[in-house]
Amino acid sequence: MKSTTNHENTVRSVQEVRVCRIEGVHADAAADLVAVEEPMEIQLAYGPPNARLLKSISVTMRTPGEDFDLAVGFLVTEGVVRDASDIERVQDVSTSAGQNVVRVELAPEVEVRLATLERNFYTTSSCGICGKASLLALRSVSPPRVRSEFRMALDVLYSLPAALRAAQNVFEQTGGLHGAALFDSRGKLHAVREDVGRHNAVDKLVGSEFRKDHAPLRDRLLMLSGRASFELLQKALMAGLPAVAAVGAPSSLAVQVAKEFDITLVGFLREDHLNIYHGEQRIVPN
Amino acid sequence: MKSTTNHENTVRSVQEVRVCRIEGVHADAAADLVAVEEPMEIQLAYGPPNARLLKSISVTMRTPGEDFDLAVGFLVTEGVVRDASDIERVQDVSTSAGQNVVRVELAPEVEVRLATLERNFYTTSSCGICGKASLLALRSVSPPRVRSEFRMALDVLYSLPAALRAAQNVFEQTGGLHGAALFDSRGKLHAVREDVGRHNAVDKLVGSEFRKDHAPLRDRLLMLSGRASFELLQKALMAGLPAVAAVGAPSSLAVQVAKEFDITLVGFLREDHLNIYHGEQRIVPN
Repeated sequence: MKSTTNHENTVRSVQEVRVCRIEGVHADAAADLVAVEEPMEIQLAYGPPNARLLKSISVTMRTPGEDFDLAVGFLVTEGVVRDASDIERVQDVSTSAGQNVVRVELAPEVEVRLATLERNFYTTSSCGICGKASLLALRSVSPPRVRSEFRMALDVLYSLPAALRAAQNVFEQTGGLHGAALFDSRGKLHAVREDVGRHNAVDKLVGSEFRKDHAPLRDRLLMLSGRASFELLQKALMAGLPAVAAVGAPSSLAVQVAKEFDITLVGFLREDHLNIYHGEQRIVPN
Repeated sequence: MKSTTNHENTVRSVQEVRVCRIEGVHADAAADLVAVEEPMEIQLAYGPPNARLLKSISVTMRTPGEDFDLAVGFLVTEGVVRDASDIERVQDVSTSAGQNVVRVELAPEVEVRLATLERNFYTTSSCGICGKASLLALRSVSPPRVRSEFRMALDVLYSLPAALRAAQNVFEQTGGLHGAALFDSRGKLHAVREDVGRHNAVDKLVGSEFRKDHAPLRDRLLMLSGRASFELLQKALMAGLPAVAAVGAPSSLAVQVAKEFDITLVGFLREDHLNIYHGEQRIVPN
């Protein structure tokens, strides 16, 4: 997979704004840093050489940076691509007018199911709209589960929130970003991403590993700075992750996905206590 | 506006799950409450009596409860309806299979611009995808701004986070929900809503007031338990709100919307300090 243009390292994720800061009754003009939020379009080019098609498949509000990872991770977690060789090229086709557009060129032989892309795949009208249908829809598109040997010791798990906080740069500056990180079973941090959208932070992580041909992520735990929703568990499932740990609470449907697909789900992770909603066999005594 | 069927008060927003709770190295089986997350479809019925059209316009993961408010609030904040008389009826057309579907019947004379509904309106491909385009798109659909006389005393503002926390029922139980509330200038709480999705909490609030014919909300402040993003400022704008205060940080584009449309934006609101990103004239000494 080649990247022709990549301005990823030159974009700014943080912007300075003037604020009126009030402490008690004392007001002062001050400078404050905010996380940048800007729309980005993902385009997909696919089909045989003599009949290439170009389609805009998503516009998301994201924090600039790792835009290629975001585009690729989105395609992975939505089930469009399964292997690094599915992608021929990623291009920045942003215009000089400041429109952010990333185009992903698929290999000619990759079949694209457009129905999957029209909206998130749990929303097809044929399958109905309920929690059970969401799970059934996931089952039809998720990669085959491989019995994961992933295990993590309890004291390693307890160390993750501090490690994530220490790694979150922009969050420290702005207080405005969701963080997501990948740890191995010994607690080594492999990657961390931040974004105004929590789903984007996860897509950036997954896309980054996928582009390095590290997918599926069977030997990693996904750590989240916030809460665990259906969408985040869906992304973990599609990326092949065996375990998710969140500082915040899980939702009901997140717990159901964890049970249905045997993903270890930890919530309210702090330095000395946690809840395991499913898959406690992967958390082992020290 | 009539509601024919309404199961809003019978649904459950909280679900009990079994967890393995670990404190230090001690593990116990325990019961835990999680916020329910389930998809809901919003259908729109519109057009003249002899040519009614039915269209599915959105599927969102939401916490059950106030589903009618959510559907109506979504239509208000997306600019589809502007007046309570635009809506003839709201119906629960969920199936017995557990599919959650709410249908909103518009008055025959209401014109629906489908382009607006295809995706969020800041994403039309003609206007391009950049922060500036997002603001321009907002300008074309936002209601005319009326110079707001809304003012709030500083000590009233400082009291809001505690008032919001005290009013957040489900959050206390599950830790898993975003809260949004409407306060008047004297700090009286008029409504509070919670949801796994922060945009849903705001739509539920706006829909609730709209259905009581209380829109536009020129004399209310919108309080958010989390961060302030573009989408939330967009919703505040469409609802006519003059002020937004968030416990968390704003994004860059949220600040731009506040400036462009003169919405007072307060971030990092605590009991004795805060930042004003725009519109400090509405915050007055005690």
